[in-house]
Amino acid sequence: MEFLVQVLVSLKPAVNDPQGLTVQSALHALGFQGVKRVRVGKYLEVYVEAESRESAQRQAEEMCRKLLANPVIEQFQFTVREVSPGGVAQPSPRT
Amino acid sequence: MEFLVQVLVSLKPAVNDPQGLTVQSALHALGFQGVKRVRVGKYLEVYVEAESRESAQRQAEEMCRKLLANPVIEQFQFTVREVSPGGVAQPSPRT
Repeated sequence: MEFLVQVLVSLKPAVNDPQGLTVQSALHALGFQGVKRVRVGKYLEVYVEAESRESAQRQAEEMCRKLLANPVIEQFQFTVREVSPGGVAQPSPRT
Repeated sequence: MEFLVQVLVSLKPAVNDPQGLTVQSALHALGFQGVKRVRVGKYLEVYVEAESRESAQRQAEEMCRKLLANPVIEQFQFTVREVSPGGVAQPSPRT
């Protein structure tokens, strides 16, 4: 079974985000005066072959802890859903 | 009213993703042999002051087109939800 793991990695709230400040300034310069705060993070799509959804979830958690997020300054969240081989999503519920 | 816009920017499917390939190799090296493909994109949180959800959505769409995504090689999607000033999410449904 193939699963698509969608991972969001973002800076912890207390961590400075110069990239976010730059984007915020650029949005203001473009006329979006209503923008109050911007935080920039990463979005990863990981396609995993696994025996079960539980196995895919376990692996995803481990990947985040070991490589995808820096636990000192970043936090992560992810969803796992089954896809048919080749990458088309099945209508199974997200977890 | 304050809204949190969560934006996902990813490369179009036909575009090469060397960063994704690097992450994939690193995951294989860590023992995650089941990983078939990795795509790396951006995740942005934009807090916007707007009169209504519709206004926030319109602004979000425009921000993505004008700045946050490169229309030549990237695609985007976003959700908008109301938050209380200060950044705590309301129990309103995501759109």
